[in-house]
Amino acid sequence: MQTDWIDDLILAMPEGCRISTAPDLIDRESRDETEDLRYEPEVVVEPANTFEVAALLKWANLHKAPVTASGARTGLSGGALAVEGGIALSMRRMNSILEIDRDNHQVRVQPGVIVQTLQEEVAQVGLFYAVDPASRGTCTIGGNIAENSGGPRAVKYGVTKDWVLNLEVVLADGSVIKTGANTLKNSTGYNLTQLLVGSEGTLGIVTEATLKLMPLPTHQALMLVPFNSARDACQAVAAIFQAGVQPSALEFMERAAIELAQTFTEDYSLKLDASTEAHLLIEVDAFRAEDIMPQVEAILPVLESLGAGEPLFADDEASKDRLWFLRRRVGEAVKASSIYKEEDTVVPRALLPDLLDKVKAIGAQFGFESVCYGHAGDGNLHVNILRGDLSEDAWTNELPVAIRSLFEAVVVMGGTLSGEHGIGYVQRSYMDVVFSERHLQLMRDVKTAFDPNGILNPGKIIPDE
Amino acid sequence: MQTDWIDDLILAMPEGCRISTAPDLIDRESRDETEDLRYEPEVVVEPANTFEVAALLKWANLHKAPVTASGARTGLSGGALAVEGGIALSMRRMNSILEIDRDNHQVRVQPGVIVQTLQEEVAQVGLFYAVDPASRGTCTIGGNIAENSGGPRAVKYGVTKDWVLNLEVVLADGSVIKTGANTLKNSTGYNLTQLLVGSEGTLGIVTEATLKLMPLPTHQALMLVPFNSARDACQAVAAIFQAGVQPSALEFMERAAIELAQTFTEDYSLKLDASTEAHLLIEVDAFRAEDIMPQVEAILPVLESLGAGEPLFADDEASKDRLWFLRRRVGEAVKASSIYKEEDTVVPRALLPDLLDKVKAIGAQFGFESVCYGHAGDGNLHVNILRGDLSEDAWTNELPVAIRSLFEAVVVMGGTLSGEHGIGYVQRSYMDVVFSERHLQLMRDVKTAFDPNGILNPGKIIPDE
Repeated sequence: MQTDWIDDLILAMPEGCRISTAPDLIDRESRDETEDLRYEPEVVVEPANTFEVAALLKWANLHKAPVTASGARTGLSGGALAVEGGIALSMRRMNSILEIDRDNHQVRVQPGVIVQTLQEEVAQVGLFYAVDPASRGTCTIGGNIAENSGGPRAVKYGVTKDWVLNLEVVLADGSVIKTGANTLKNSTGYNLTQLLVGSEGTLGIVTEATLKLMPLPTHQALMLVPFNSARDACQAVAAIFQAGVQPSALEFMERAAIELAQTFTEDYSLKLDASTEAHLLIEVDAFRAEDIMPQVEAILPVLESLGAGEPLFADDEASKDRLWFLRRRVGEAVKASSIYKEEDTVVPRALLPDLLDKVKAIGAQFGFESVCYGHAGDGNLHVNILRGDLSEDAWTNELPVAIRSLFEAVVVMGGTLSGEHGIGYVQRSYMDVVFSERHLQLMRDVKTAFDPNGILNPGKIIPDE
Repeated sequence: MQTDWIDDLILAMPEGCRISTAPDLIDRESRDETEDLRYEPEVVVEPANTFEVAALLKWANLHKAPVTASGARTGLSGGALAVEGGIALSMRRMNSILEIDRDNHQVRVQPGVIVQTLQEEVAQVGLFYAVDPASRGTCTIGGNIAENSGGPRAVKYGVTKDWVLNLEVVLADGSVIKTGANTLKNSTGYNLTQLLVGSEGTLGIVTEATLKLMPLPTHQALMLVPFNSARDACQAVAAIFQAGVQPSALEFMERAAIELAQTFTEDYSLKLDASTEAHLLIEVDAFRAEDIMPQVEAILPVLESLGAGEPLFADDEASKDRLWFLRRRVGEAVKASSIYKEEDTVVPRALLPDLLDKVKAIGAQFGFESVCYGHAGDGNLHVNILRGDLSEDAWTNELPVAIRSLFEAVVVMGGTLSGEHGIGYVQRSYMDVVFSERHLQLMRDVKTAFDPNGILNPGKIIPDE
């Protein structure tokens, strides 16, 4: 059902620009990986270059048409859902790696580049792009920038924001700016680069990014460590850092998380001891083989002192890949097992044991099961609340009260709502748990400075007044 | 000469708040370390706590009185100068380290804490705050946050922005917010923390900061490496990184920079070979003694291949301190030698040789001498233009043309105006070299969102329309 305004849009856009109202495309662009949410845009635009994006926004700004950008639609907070309809702006065709600058350890990319592709391309010349969300095989760098994505290696190498040097951005009125410079340091005016990262497509559309790279660490050791007490596993996390070690990944998985992943992948080769309640997956890396063992040797006594079981070392690439495969499938496995809601809580990492206790206590109080796992080294715990046989009333009306109470506890701990998934659509109603009304109004004012007509991803991040 | 509005202000402020129009205080608060600039505020307020800052801003916002915050007044871009008079807000009394959180490797500080004091306090418990501007013995953490300061170790450990997790900020209307959370990751709403860092007191007043710490590297090696060609020295910088080494400092000094520092410190113990044109000061660090030599051994062949002379190794703490002392005094030494202007250019580091050539070519064209030194590992070159015997006309009218032409070249290289000193007052008129008018307007709109009455540090960063 094509409306008049879409005809107008097609006329206004540069010739050859891909614009479609085909039902299969509308359907594809109606969801991401967030629960089972579905919002149909009215039209899908798939630009090939910055010029087309600029033309689109100029038109949309004049006509006050909502524009919701997306990459691979793997988001977990509904950031790419066109909740107010309008135009879905798919960036997936702008997927070129434009330049690998080996002299300066930088890469210039379009937003539609898949993260794993980027990693593999720069690894060919001995360079490393460290950010690796579980979805790295499908997610795009543009989506990572929008949500400030993390992943297992963030604990040593930082999140997306730490790798973005400069952005080309199309503003709401169709103007094009470069937010920064291709330099490692920059004290030149407001840091709009960092403001744009994590702004979920509400302030501007990223059409190009200059990313930092570093030399590729060539050696890793990986171990899976069982604990009879999940609390002890959490406690080991902070203790490892206090011992002066900097692991390149430090992941926590409740027993149920591994079991679900085993069911999902049909790979039961890992034998779980009956008494095991949780695992830590610990990776260390280095540029030289001889720098691996000293790190492992510093970690082992910490584990032992906290009652860990015998670590399982991944001896070769195949076993490493198998352990990582299991870890990366946990999210999908949970999703496949039940209707669920995922929270992306983050606290100062030494408070992780308290956070886990709180999750379970609130679960007991409200009668829900949860599966917890995540990037424990960052204090970032993914809390998956399973629908199980909860009633419609409990799921719809009581659960938000439980989640609010969890977030209140998180804020008291110095933590916040989302470590790496963003607020998007589904966490928006909890923003007042963290931020005062004055603070939210300031965010609204910033939004208005960038997007006075409110066309960019409306209905996201900031709750309405 | 006390005006009526100052009496009003005194009446409005909480009892006991320190407010003064004493000439010596006004005089002290009229300058920073930028050239010989001097701008007198009308009154100086020295608050003891957040509550007093909030009361001050509330009053100033109602009365549209300019408020210019400062720390230790060591800035090099005039950011702390009250160029429109009004209120000087000195944060130096708010100088407590509030909490060292050893479990989470974090520290909570007030803005007036001196950076070296912070470093020494956390080192007592084996922790490391890495940002170390040359002025670290006097400059404050609040000033570092305002300017996004760097220093020699930024090349490995990043600049101030990379260490700031969360800020307490008083907004222009006197409201108090926390910009983020005390977590290593955060994807919860707009990243106002990173927007505030480097905003030079124009968006809000930082009254408390939560900073990241890390375990203290306990071993260092330091070497001073002479080159007969400054260009070769610059070329060695990128080559060292390409060899896969990550030095903890990589500083460049022209011969004249060392000579001026020797004259200034009256320490001539370092003998310079007649043919030496420049030096690199290279530091590597580690947590274990045995991790030092492999780094040195990776660097030496690179230096040799680029024609470096014999490196001078600092064998003990005393010699290390002496070399660093010399390096840290270069800025003051230049200042003591001549009237000068300092530019804080930054480019992708492999282009450093081209930048140095450009500086010298423009110098030759416009007839000025320059002394160059800086954080070569970051591509950050401090260009000190000496007045020497330039005429008043050349200094006042021709030099800005020369500087503009230098900045134009920097921008073509992918670089920008300031790597770590900020724009403040003295670089404001060059902002149009980097940013389009649309981009500057966006910065003005962001400023207005935070500070609709324009009371916070007026006349800074963004040129007038």
